[in-house]
Amino acid sequence: MTTFELLRQARAAWPALQAAGTEKKNEALLRMADALIDHQADILSANALDMEAAKDRISAVMLDRLKLTPDRIAGMAQGIREVAALPDPVGAVISRVERPNGLVIERTRVAMGVIAIIYESRPNVTSDAAVLALKAGSACVLRGGKEAFRSASAIVKAMKAGLVAAGLPEDLVQLVQDTSRQSSTDLMTAVGLVDLLIPRGGAGLIRAITENAKVPCIQTGTGICHVYVDAAGDQAKALDIIENAKTSRPSVCNAEEVLLVHSAIAAEFLPKLKQRLVDDRAARGDIPVELRLDARAAAIIPGAPASETDFDTEFLDYILAVAVVDSAEEAVTHIAKHSTGHSEAVISEDPAVQDLFTRAVDSAAVYVNCSTRFTDGGEFGLGCEMGISTQKLHARGPMGLEELTTYKYIVRGSGQIR
Amino acid sequence: MTTFELLRQARAAWPALQAAGTEKKNEALLRMADALIDHQADILSANALDMEAAKDRISAVMLDRLKLTPDRIAGMAQGIREVAALPDPVGAVISRVERPNGLVIERTRVAMGVIAIIYESRPNVTSDAAVLALKAGSACVLRGGKEAFRSASAIVKAMKAGLVAAGLPEDLVQLVQDTSRQSSTDLMTAVGLVDLLIPRGGAGLIRAITENAKVPCIQTGTGICHVYVDAAGDQAKALDIIENAKTSRPSVCNAEEVLLVHSAIAAEFLPKLKQRLVDDRAARGDIPVELRLDARAAAIIPGAPASETDFDTEFLDYILAVAVVDSAEEAVTHIAKHSTGHSEAVISEDPAVQDLFTRAVDSAAVYVNCSTRFTDGGEFGLGCEMGISTQKLHARGPMGLEELTTYKYIVRGSGQIR
Repeated sequence: MTTFELLRQARAAWPALQAAGTEKKNEALLRMADALIDHQADILSANALDMEAAKDRISAVMLDRLKLTPDRIAGMAQGIREVAALPDPVGAVISRVERPNGLVIERTRVAMGVIAIIYESRPNVTSDAAVLALKAGSACVLRGGKEAFRSASAIVKAMKAGLVAAGLPEDLVQLVQDTSRQSSTDLMTAVGLVDLLIPRGGAGLIRAITENAKVPCIQTGTGICHVYVDAAGDQAKALDIIENAKTSRPSVCNAEEVLLVHSAIAAEFLPKLKQRLVDDRAARGDIPVELRLDARAAAIIPGAPASETDFDTEFLDYILAVAVVDSAEEAVTHIAKHSTGHSEAVISEDPAVQDLFTRAVDSAAVYVNCSTRFTDGGEFGLGCEMGISTQKLHARGPMGLEELTTYKYIVRGSGQIR
Repeated sequence: MTTFELLRQARAAWPALQAAGTEKKNEALLRMADALIDHQADILSANALDMEAAKDRISAVMLDRLKLTPDRIAGMAQGIREVAALPDPVGAVISRVERPNGLVIERTRVAMGVIAIIYESRPNVTSDAAVLALKAGSACVLRGGKEAFRSASAIVKAMKAGLVAAGLPEDLVQLVQDTSRQSSTDLMTAVGLVDLLIPRGGAGLIRAITENAKVPCIQTGTGICHVYVDAAGDQAKALDIIENAKTSRPSVCNAEEVLLVHSAIAAEFLPKLKQRLVDDRAARGDIPVELRLDARAAAIIPGAPASETDFDTEFLDYILAVAVVDSAEEAVTHIAKHSTGHSEAVISEDPAVQDLFTRAVDSAAVYVNCSTRFTDGGEFGLGCEMGISTQKLHARGPMGLEELTTYKYIVRGSGQIR
């Protein structure tokens, strides 16, 4: 089956989902959760084959991400049940106006239609992404990484069984069969068949999207996140926040990659930073952070000199680029030049600096005195998350169910003409 | 000056607009309105040159659209003053949540940055579009049609004088100097320099955008709008609505192009339709509507047979394609296949049919018992309009000031880490 055929089937199935109410959609999700448990043996065998095929080709970290266990499958089923329990975004009236001529205009939240998702090799994303799309009222077409293809196939088979058990068409969830780069290109160019494409992935995928996509896309992904410690910053807070933002999970997009320090406190603060991120961590057996320093920081503490590209790199590792700046304005200017527009934090007790920073920094999430690691659907109270948008159109920052919908205007009249 | 240089200048000027508050933005708009009046003589001379150059090359209708008069310039200035009086969308807190860990998360409306607009030859769009972008907090880069280039240059010169009089950079409004197709392509591909591109134009421009655009776009434009007269429709209302939707302004995108009639009433209704749209109009000297009929309609009334393409054509003229369908479901299916997703109306007194139609029709505006001509920012109470979006991402239907902004999350804490 070609990718275009799968898309056409999904589109043909969509009206049945649109006609189904909240209750039926939720029933389908619960049946899908049950089916994952029922199909556990098949899913585990498929995953074992994926693991065997991948074992000499990907890193231990990636292998661990690929691996499924009964506990992880139970976690996926539980995740589906949690989405079923969330409020239905579809049908909500966002705003309503009655015009002088008697027209009643309701801006109403509606489903997108067909949502396509390109993702990498974590098998649980297969069910996470599918149920978010379905709950948001859309059919979904999944294009996962080739390492997890057998696992994803078994998971999709279970989800289709759940849909059928609830009386909905199995074509509402489709797995792209072609795992070559061609299928990603097909999804990017399927004008009229894809209402929304969500590429979840690294810089390479985002670049391919920018160059090739002809369908509507929301880009998620890269985060070169900055923390700026102001002259009026609480340095103890700053150290806690920086260590958290850099080291609690270095591989994620909301981890800090660049630290900017005000010159008025640099001589006092940078030695504390080195103590905290390098010496203390090494002493207690944690991985120390490699500091890459601009010339002014290097004059104060030892560390590797920062290369030209270090302030434009998403390290996703225990590496932090450090620069000294002379003002909050200079920090803002540095961020405007080097940020990917994901998440940035200011550490300052000065309200004027907080205001300047939050107003002038043009990123999806701007933090005052807390960690950039909070950019996350769950942490923001959205209940779930499809990804973090780093673009400005439609959705910005963490994307929950509402961000996967669109709206239409429903206008009721009694013969009005213009 | 190249288009890319103009874009870079606009981006460099943007922070000054971002730093300006509502009052200063409004002052700038009022100064721009005054400047249009002050520069009236220059604008009229430039327009006279445009008219002279265009007189043998474009139609009388287009020439009338190109022509400026003191009254029209006064209207443009008045339009600017009305935008100044609208509420400022920037800075509004869309939602606010306080999390259990004490974080206060505000989803805050912010400006896009640089908005580029491609439009055709009506000179007044130059000021309309510029002031909407500025009020929404963005610098704007205008690419108008070549027939109006001298007029647009004089208008932009006046607007720049207004900006400077208010203490804002003149580069906040830029007119693209190259009126060849290359400059449109430049705008479509200026990744990192254009935050939002709004192409206002016909099907050819929209196609070029779909094929070439690499920057975020909102497409406005084509409307193949349908009216469906149900078996339970009030036929007197239907005739009023159809005549209004088809003939009140046939050249606009919210005009009706296709009529679908339920078979149960076709034999009764179609002769009344012909009487109203053809015979009555001819009798009183109005332009009669040319009816293009499918086989079932042609069996009931005289008219031209509809060709294969007539149900997929935006006529923008006194032409109406007519088809007979056997149910509301069949009407919905026809619309799904042929509509451009702009505006569709159902004429029915049956609540079940109204519900089916409003739920199942996937267009920006869906009307019950009123004219499709209401799809308009002013009619919807938005106070102004940049265009009608026929896509699903970001904005759908009439776009006012809010639709020209984005949002960011501002998160305030007291040292929270994750």
